[in-house]
Amino acid sequence: MKVLVLNCGSSSIKYKLFEMTTKEVLAQGGIEKIGLPGSFLKLTLPNGEKKVIEKDVPEHTTGVQFIFDTLTNAEYGAVSNLHEIKAVGHRVLHGGTKFSGSVLIDDAVIAAVEECCDLGPLHNPANLKGIYAVQKLLPEVPQVAVFDTAFHQTMPDYAYLYPIPYKYFEKYGIRRYGFHGTSHRYVSKRVCEFLNIPQEGSRIITCHIGNGGSIAAVKDGKCIDTTMGLTPLEGLMMGTRCGDIDGGAITYIMKKEGLTPDEMSTLLNKKSGVLGMFEKSSDMRELEDAVARGEERAILTENMYFYRITKYIGAYAAAMGGVDVILFTGGVGENQATARAGVCKTLGFLGVEIDPERNKVRSKEAIISTDSSKVKVVVIPTDEELMIATDTMNILNNK
Amino acid sequence: MKVLVLNCGSSSIKYKLFEMTTKEVLAQGGIEKIGLPGSFLKLTLPNGEKKVIEKDVPEHTTGVQFIFDTLTNAEYGAVSNLHEIKAVGHRVLHGGTKFSGSVLIDDAVIAAVEECCDLGPLHNPANLKGIYAVQKLLPEVPQVAVFDTAFHQTMPDYAYLYPIPYKYFEKYGIRRYGFHGTSHRYVSKRVCEFLNIPQEGSRIITCHIGNGGSIAAVKDGKCIDTTMGLTPLEGLMMGTRCGDIDGGAITYIMKKEGLTPDEMSTLLNKKSGVLGMFEKSSDMRELEDAVARGEERAILTENMYFYRITKYIGAYAAAMGGVDVILFTGGVGENQATARAGVCKTLGFLGVEIDPERNKVRSKEAIISTDSSKVKVVVIPTDEELMIATDTMNILNNK
Repeated sequence: MKVLVLNCGSSSIKYKLFEMTTKEVLAQGGIEKIGLPGSFLKLTLPNGEKKVIEKDVPEHTTGVQFIFDTLTNAEYGAVSNLHEIKAVGHRVLHGGTKFSGSVLIDDAVIAAVEECCDLGPLHNPANLKGIYAVQKLLPEVPQVAVFDTAFHQTMPDYAYLYPIPYKYFEKYGIRRYGFHGTSHRYVSKRVCEFLNIPQEGSRIITCHIGNGGSIAAVKDGKCIDTTMGLTPLEGLMMGTRCGDIDGGAITYIMKKEGLTPDEMSTLLNKKSGVLGMFEKSSDMRELEDAVARGEERAILTENMYFYRITKYIGAYAAAMGGVDVILFTGGVGENQATARAGVCKTLGFLGVEIDPERNKVRSKEAIISTDSSKVKVVVIPTDEELMIATDTMNILNNK
Repeated sequence: MKVLVLNCGSSSIKYKLFEMTTKEVLAQGGIEKIGLPGSFLKLTLPNGEKKVIEKDVPEHTTGVQFIFDTLTNAEYGAVSNLHEIKAVGHRVLHGGTKFSGSVLIDDAVIAAVEECCDLGPLHNPANLKGIYAVQKLLPEVPQVAVFDTAFHQTMPDYAYLYPIPYKYFEKYGIRRYGFHGTSHRYVSKRVCEFLNIPQEGSRIITCHIGNGGSIAAVKDGKCIDTTMGLTPLEGLMMGTRCGDIDGGAITYIMKKEGLTPDEMSTLLNKKSGVLGMFEKSSDMRELEDAVARGEERAILTENMYFYRITKYIGAYAAAMGGVDVILFTGGVGENQATARAGVCKTLGFLGVEIDPERNKVRSKEAIISTDSSKVKVVVIPTDEELMIATDTMNILNNK
C-alpha cells in the first residue's frame, strides 16, 4: 500500500511517498518559493543524487499537480499511475483542543481545521491549501490529518493553563498546546521498543532539538507537559526564537522601541535565539565551528542553549517524580555529541552517566549512557513522515 | 547602636528601628496613602497593639518627619532624641549591574540609583525620595542602600542573558537581574548556621513564596540563578502576577484586545496569577479556604501554583548538579504546610522526604524533612529589615 505524505507551508510543499508493507521511501522531495519568482522542485533520485526542476508554481494546486507529474514521470518517477497512491497523509500544525489524534478528513474536519487558523495563522491555511489541492486533483483518494498538537492533548489542566485572567482561555483558547507532537509521539514509543520496556510505567523526557526545539515529559506513554506553548515561541532557545523570556522584558522593549505586537513577534520569533546572541548565524553547526575556534560569543551562546535544556530536564524529572529515559532527537539531538554531553554535564545527581565513546553516534538509534547509568540516555532519529504515513494507513485499515 | 530601616514605596513608607547590640526591634510601623486622601501612620506598640494616627501626608519628606515625630513621641515613642539613631538603611529595589553589595550613600551612589530608575520605574524614584528626606531632616546621619538585586549579581552570563538580539542588552541592559535578593541572601546564610554546615560546598534552593514569589539557586553561598528577571514578573505564579508565559501569548492578546504595552503590563502584573485564575482573591489564605471547601477552580489554581514551584526546584537542582537543602520562606513558605507538602509531593526522586508532623510548623526555624531525607527541607522565616540593619551597621563599623 502506497501512502503519500504532504507537509504544506505557505510557500513550500514537502512530500514523501512510502510503500507501507516495507516502510520503504519510494520518492521524496519538495517544492520551494511557491508564489514567488524562482520556484522549483528538488527531488532525491534513487541513487541519492538531488535533481532540481525549475517551474513557475503560482499556488498550491499547481504545486501538488507538479508533485504528481514528478511522481509519475517516465524517467525519474516512482509510480506508473497515480491510482497506486491509496491515501494522502497531511501534517497539520494546529488542531486546538478539537483533535487529540489523527483523523480521516471530511467536511467537518476541514471546518474544524479552519477554526484553528487563528491559532496557527502561518501554517493551518497552508495545510488546508494542500488538502483542497488533493481533493481537486484526486477526489477519490482518502486523506488523513495528523496534528502537531494532538499528542500533547493529554496534559493536565494545571500544566496547560497560563495564570492570566481565565476569560482569555474561554474567549480565545489561550493555553499551552505544544508542537512537534508527531515527533515526540514517534520517538517516545519507538524508544520503548528499542529498549524493550513497556510504555506503561516509564518516565521519558524527549528532547527534540533542532532549529526549532521542544521537550516533552512523557509518562506511561502520555504527554504530561511540553515546552512549547500557545505558539512555538515558548520554551527552549532555538535557531531564531528566544524561548522563555520575562513578559516584562517584552512590554519594556515594545515601549522603548515603539514596536507593534506583530513587530515584536517578528523580533522574538525570527531575530532572537542563536541568531540574536551569536549574530553570525542561526545554524548550530556554524555555532559549533565557532566554539571550536574559541570565539567567546559563540561559547556564551552555546552555554545558554545547553543550560536551558538542562533546566527543563530537571523540571520535567520533578514533574514526573523522576526520569527513566532521556532521549535526544532532531537535527542537533541526533547528530551533535557535544550538545548531548553539554546538556547532561550536571545531571549526574539524577543518575545520568554518558559514555563518551557511545556518544559519538550520529543519526542512529543508540544508547549513549554507560551500562551503570541509572537513567538510560538514548538517541532515536525522529521520523515524522513515517508516523504520518503509519497513522494514515491505520485509519484506512480501520475504516 | 540604633539603626532605622526604611522601605519607601510610591505611596507608602515602612519603618523598623533596631537596637543592634541585641537585635531588638524598638519600634515599627508604616505610613500609607502618601499623597492620597486618608493617609495615616500605623504603628505597633510595645504590648503588640496597633495604633493608627491619621494625618495629611502630601509627600515623602513630611512622611519621614511624621515617622521621626512618632519615634520621639513622649507617650509611645522609642527614643528620647533623634540623635540616638546612628544610621538609616534603605531598601532600594534596583541596583542594575552597578551594585553587587550594600553601600554607604553618597552623591555618586544617588546618581547611580537615579540611572537605574528606568529599570525600576515604580520603586527607585520612591526609594530616592526617602533618601532625600533623611538627607534634609538628619543631614549628619549616614545612610546605606541595600539593593534587592545585589545578591543575584553573581549569576553567570549564560543564566542572566536572554536570547534576544544582543544589542538590547547593550542598549537598555535587558537581562535577568532578580529580586528579593536581601531575603535570599539572609535565609541562605542563616540556614547554614541553623544546620551547622558551611556555605562553601552547599547547594541550596531558597523558595521565597508569598504574594510575590521567587526562587534562587545558591551554590557555595552565591546565587547562580533566580526566577525573577528583568522585572519581578517572571518566574513563579504569584498573587496577581502570571510568572512564566509564552511571549507569543502576550503579543497575541495585545493584538486581539488592542492593548498598549502599559495596559498589557498591568494585565500581567496586576490581574493575573492567583487572582486571574481563582477570580475571587489573590490571597493564598482565601485560596486555601476555598480548596478546603472543595471549590474546583480553587483546586486548579493551587495545583498550578504548586506545580510551577516544583518544576523550578527540579530545574535548579539540575543547574547546580544536585541539591542539599530546600528552604521555604515568605508568607506562604513560612506558614502554609499544605503548600510545602504540595510542592514536595513529587520530589522523592531527589531524596526529599517530608515529615508531616514537623511540617506543621509556622513562622519558626525548623527542619521539616525526616531524619532519613537525603535533602534537608527547612523553614527559615525571612528578615529583610534585620539584614538591612546589619549591612548598615557593618558598613558604618568598617568605614
